[in-house]
Amino acid sequence: MADDEIEVVYRLRADPSGLDARVEALLLEQTVEMGREALRSAHAREHFVGRVIGTEAVGDAEFLVALAQPAEAAAGDPAQLLNVLFGNCSLQDDVELEDVRIPATLVRMLCGPRFGTAGLRQLTGVRGRALAASVLKPMGLSAREAASLCRTLAMAGLDVIKDDHGLADHPGCPFAERVRLCLAATAEAAETTGRRALYVPNLIGSPATVLRQAREASELGAGAVMVSPMLLGLPGFNELVRDLGRPVLAHPAFGGAQRISPVALLGKLFPLFGADAVIYPNTGGRFSYGPEVCAGIARALREPDAAIAPALPVPAGGIRAENAAAVLESYGADTMLLVGGGLLEAPDPGALLARSRQFVGAVHAFPYLP
Amino acid sequence: MADDEIEVVYRLRADPSGLDARVEALLLEQTVEMGREALRSAHAREHFVGRVIGTEAVGDAEFLVALAQPAEAAAGDPAQLLNVLFGNCSLQDDVELEDVRIPATLVRMLCGPRFGTAGLRQLTGVRGRALAASVLKPMGLSAREAASLCRTLAMAGLDVIKDDHGLADHPGCPFAERVRLCLAATAEAAETTGRRALYVPNLIGSPATVLRQAREASELGAGAVMVSPMLLGLPGFNELVRDLGRPVLAHPAFGGAQRISPVALLGKLFPLFGADAVIYPNTGGRFSYGPEVCAGIARALREPDAAIAPALPVPAGGIRAENAAAVLESYGADTMLLVGGGLLEAPDPGALLARSRQFVGAVHAFPYLP
Repeated sequence: MADDEIEVVYRLRADPSGLDARVEALLLEQTVEMGREALRSAHAREHFVGRVIGTEAVGDAEFLVALAQPAEAAAGDPAQLLNVLFGNCSLQDDVELEDVRIPATLVRMLCGPRFGTAGLRQLTGVRGRALAASVLKPMGLSAREAASLCRTLAMAGLDVIKDDHGLADHPGCPFAERVRLCLAATAEAAETTGRRALYVPNLIGSPATVLRQAREASELGAGAVMVSPMLLGLPGFNELVRDLGRPVLAHPAFGGAQRISPVALLGKLFPLFGADAVIYPNTGGRFSYGPEVCAGIARALREPDAAIAPALPVPAGGIRAENAAAVLESYGADTMLLVGGGLLEAPDPGALLARSRQFVGAVHAFPYLP
Repeated sequence: MADDEIEVVYRLRADPSGLDARVEALLLEQTVEMGREALRSAHAREHFVGRVIGTEAVGDAEFLVALAQPAEAAAGDPAQLLNVLFGNCSLQDDVELEDVRIPATLVRMLCGPRFGTAGLRQLTGVRGRALAASVLKPMGLSAREAASLCRTLAMAGLDVIKDDHGLADHPGCPFAERVRLCLAATAEAAETTGRRALYVPNLIGSPATVLRQAREASELGAGAVMVSPMLLGLPGFNELVRDLGRPVLAHPAFGGAQRISPVALLGKLFPLFGADAVIYPNTGGRFSYGPEVCAGIARALREPDAAIAPALPVPAGGIRAENAAAVLESYGADTMLLVGGGLLEAPDPGALLARSRQFVGAVHAFPYLP
């Protein structure tokens, strides 16, 4: 691929007889947004009109259409890049963004994961096996209750304990107090276990709020944070990670990824914009992704087709101590398994501790074969 | 509706025999995110679990499900509000966000359009008829070419001339230079026409970039700006408009609104977050919205069911001088008609001027009956 082109693949429903015209319209829609014959500016015609790489029938009246758009159209800006990829055509019912390939100049602009899998492994000290993560929830816990839960999970040997993405700055559970108490809880547990769990607070709010929370989390000593890029906005997410100085887990909330394929959004765009680890709904859980989609997300994160660091897949949903080994069997151990309800629905603290240990044990037992 | 509840309506595909369980799961998914029986915290159970208002069958295995969620869950924050509305369940294939009703406390937090229809009418001096708007494009124009086009459109009497949403800070058409030259062009045209067109530059980029562009636009004297809220992120958009001090047009790029109904996203959420006017794909154009959807968007903007100012509907796409009257017939004149290709595909500047005047004439001729 030329370094001055953005490659985009769309899944397009079209009548075969009208395919060429539809593809031409799609090509022009995403940059000059007018018919070729109406382009009076020679500069626009020569520099801002892309080209069709190819089309491939993949079903009855369904095609994969590969386009090359001029990198210049993205103007070196994250939001404008999204705009060229899926701005207007996101509103067209017959189009789904299927795949993207970003030239090196734009990859350097976005930069991708600053820490990635390697950084998270270094931070947690976990090598040679998968990482075990859990969640502080439900919304409605006080900061003290969250910290108590955090201590229990840390005592159980969880590697990563993250806030639920719904924990915001609720008056009953203020952000700074929660972070302070949960970090104290992991430190306290470490005195017994000899290893400190990574507590990951959830940053949520308008850009200014998220920046303030990032500062507070940093001052309090949090080693990593979680953000929902689609709630924050992908360009704001990219701006945040530039100065964050620590790994960020991306949560798919508000992703509504069906019109962007989940692999493209969660597997490619999220890390391109800076996610070091990406949480996604695991197959068999309460979401609709099939096993191929989940495997595709994991593969895209681990083997980025852009020059960025690999990011860590974090399947979540429907995972329990009992099936952790089977999940790892399918993903391999270069994975963070995220278990929420499967642990937290234990009837009492003792059972929670036991169940958590069982989960941790299952994760520890699965070998890492790089 | 109680002031401490957020009302959300989802369109849900479900087997009737499993409906109750599915609705219960959806209710819990969006706040506590765990089964009711697993909620050990009394505070969470009493303050963060919503209730089912009702379900209504609307088709074969399709239902409208109205839920009331505790306003407290939104923690007074724009991003967290989105999270409660359509965070996780946006990833579930069987759910579409259909409608929302926000309690007054949260409406005051978001504030809605700062200027709205009334402010835009005041700014443009257009009363008693619809507003006529057009676009500077294609991407690839130099700032000088854009200004020349702007001058022509202003001479034709357009009320509003906006950048294409794809005009970013391209090296060949830098933002500040474009704004300066286009404002000069509308001033120059006003010496002849006696009325100054409103030039609306497109702000696009990461939050910091957009803030810088907003400052520049203000210093250069732009009366309004355009933003794509889904590209910027809705919470960042809401933050931007707090200090913007001028009306903002919202562009639907990256909206991919099918999984949020277009009426809910463009007609309700965009203005709730601060859009004073909302551009949306008009029916019969190159997008897929039917006439009922478009009418629904316009109605939602004009008659907000929250205590916010009405915002101005801006249908766009497929509108030409020839059908402008028919479009106004369907929308009424409290509308901004946005025409791009229908004017810009004219073969030469003279024809463009003539065609634009014809469009302006059609808009002027349509009476405003409030």
